[in-house]
Amino acid sequence: MFQLELADHELLKNAFESISSIVDEITLTADSEALHLRCLDTSHITFITMDLEKTVFDEYQCDTPEKIAIDCKDFHNILKKAKKNDILRINIDEDNIIITFEGDARRKFKLSLVDMEYDNPQPPKMDIPCKVNIPSDLLKTYINDLEFFSERLNFIIDENYLKLSCDGQKGEGEIEYLHGENILEVVSAMFSIEKLQEIMKASKFSKECSVEVGDDMPLHVIFTLPTNDGKLEYLLAPRLEND
Amino acid sequence: MFQLELADHELLKNAFESISSIVDEITLTADSEALHLRCLDTSHITFITMDLEKTVFDEYQCDTPEKIAIDCKDFHNILKKAKKNDILRINIDEDNIIITFEGDARRKFKLSLVDMEYDNPQPPKMDIPCKVNIPSDLLKTYINDLEFFSERLNFIIDENYLKLSCDGQKGEGEIEYLHGENILEVVSAMFSIEKLQEIMKASKFSKECSVEVGDDMPLHVIFTLPTNDGKLEYLLAPRLEND
Amino acid sequence: MFQLELADHELLKNAFESISSIVDEITLTADSEALHLRCLDTSHITFITMDLEKTVFDEYQCDTPEKIAIDCKDFHNILKKAKKNDILRINIDEDNIIITFEGDARRKFKLSLVDMEYDNPQPPKMDIPCKVNIPSDLLKTYINDLEFFSERLNFIIDENYLKLSCDGQKGEGEIEYLHGENILEVVSAMFSIEKLQEIMKASKFSKECSVEVGDDMPLHVIFTLPTNDGKLEYLLAPRLEND
Repeated sequence: MFQLELADHELLKNAFESISSIVDEITLTADSEALHLRCLDTSHITFITMDLEKTVFDEYQCDTPEKIAIDCKDFHNILKKAKKNDILRINIDEDNIIITFEGDARRKFKLSLVDMEYDNPQPPKMDIPCKVNIPSDLLKTYINDLEFFSERLNFIIDENYLKLSCDGQKGEGEIEYLHGENILEVVSAMFSIEKLQEIMKASKFSKECSVEVGDDMPLHVIFTLPTNDGKLEYLLAPRLEND
Repeated sequence: MFQLELADHELLKNAFESISSIVDEITLTADSEALHLRCLDTSHITFITMDLEKTVFDEYQCDTPEKIAIDCKDFHNILKKAKKNDILRINIDEDNIIITFEGDARRKFKLSLVDMEYDNPQPPKMDIPCKVNIPSDLLKTYINDLEFFSERLNFIIDENYLKLSCDGQKGEGEIEYLHGENILEVVSAMFSIEKLQEIMKASKFSKECSVEVGDDMPLHVIFTLPTNDGKLEYLLAPRLEND
Repeated sequence: MFQLELADHELLKNAFESISSIVDEITLTADSEALHLRCLDTSHITFITMDLEKTVFDEYQCDTPEKIAIDCKDFHNILKKAKKNDILRINIDEDNIIITFEGDARRKFKLSLVDMEYDNPQPPKMDIPCKVNIPSDLLKTYINDLEFFSERLNFIIDENYLKLSCDGQKGEGEIEYLHGENILEVVSAMFSIEKLQEIMKASKFSKECSVEVGDDMPLHVIFTLPTNDGKLEYLLAPRLEND
């Protein structure tokens, strides 16, 4: 028996706005305490971790652990059909994930579960030295700003600023965001703007996000719900100068 | 002499939003009491009936009956140019329909009348057993919801619900809308989602619409103005299981 | 040393919305009193004049006259990145124009200056007889209205009206705008609708614009800032009946 109910369905839609742009099929795992996702895109560049504790939901029941393998774009497509005052319910049967919106009408959608060898990937453990917070929509805008110049950008954290910069044939761009953290070193790494944009499609998941940067290390982007019981994280492999 | 004036020009625009997506050329007929339309799309699937009594208009004058054959998309294109506070006037001369918007400026557009053998089609008489009312925008949404799964859907009316359902390779969808009518039987018929979407482009013509359903019978969708003096109706041929 | 600062950056963005649709590369000239633009599109149909006096800007400094040759689309692309509460700063170095937005972050964009033989074109002196004022957004709408019928339209000014009219295979359109000026003659000239639409992309530069019309003469469209210290003007060559 697996079943959840959620009035604030925007949360799931926002997460899958991003997830569905990165991976095709995923396996959600549910246990009595939380709903989890661990997955890696096929080019092995972006690792996604999502943990939604049962308190995120208005109702959550999972008697025995479940693996729910779904097509991400199809699932996102259904989530987008939610209307403002609908209550979202998700459960499963033998072959399907069942998404129900309870509102003016009861709208029930079944999506076939997919066959997927569950490889239970674990995110690499990283000790990334510098971490700053920034409003999610600002970070999204800044990344989009730089698309004009190049297909990759530098993330730099120094004592005062989170800096995004890049250059190309048309010119160069540099964005300096005063981070207000106590940081004593300078670190930098380069990333694909396209991959960053995929991640930032989750910007509405939480108003603020954290970014962790280390020299030529992966970028760690963390969206945490204000209630602290839900987290969506991305680990993005760096691009090297000669890529 | 044929002439009409209408401040609430949205009404005509909303009707032709749908009509122009279904038929290319039409013949409007006007008599001293009302403006009428009867037409059938070229694939003989959707029959449209529109009757706008003279009281719908702020002014209406038609001394002798007129047949006004026009290109629907062109006419709709002109109607879309209306601005909020404009007053719409329509009249005809020998060769043209003349659409005038009176507002910040007087904007006058003439469209050549088309040559059209007027065949005066009459809608087939049907005795469709079950009828329910539903807000037009909801019905429009529900139909769009199911496009994801299939190109056709079932309309089912039972004692309690108007149900729309369909299935396909990706899964299945079912929408249950509590109709609140006194209905004692169960009826169902299958329709093309694309054709239904064309009809529902008229959803703003009136806030509420009626649908009449019978086993494998055509679907009758009726939009009535709140003032009861204007009606836009569609009769949509069913699709059969083996189509 | 050339540097300017502007909180109301919409003004520049609105101007370049139009300018960048007409010309590819331009040379801005700056002197101690104002920023100027004179340019002619490659087909020699539209002449653009822009003069922004130093009082337009919150800060303006230009010690020695400067010629700043830039790619218009790239420059417009950067201007579009401005956020509502940003302050815009523009300066130059040897090889670049540097556009900085000061807001949540400092966002600094450098665009390479282009090589351009500066030909300093001067607009032809014209004595166009009739001039009327009209809200910019209305003129824009009226021109767009007529695109449906033809690719060119007539500008006519008579005692009472500014008239735009055209005809084509689908029919004809005529727009009469009561101008309220003291005009004693009738003048007309024909223009490309596409070129007029390019000009009217500047409609937000000022709420009201002036148009000057003479028989088969160029059209003069003038957008003036309410503060009277900034002006954006277009001189559009007429199309002849046999074009």
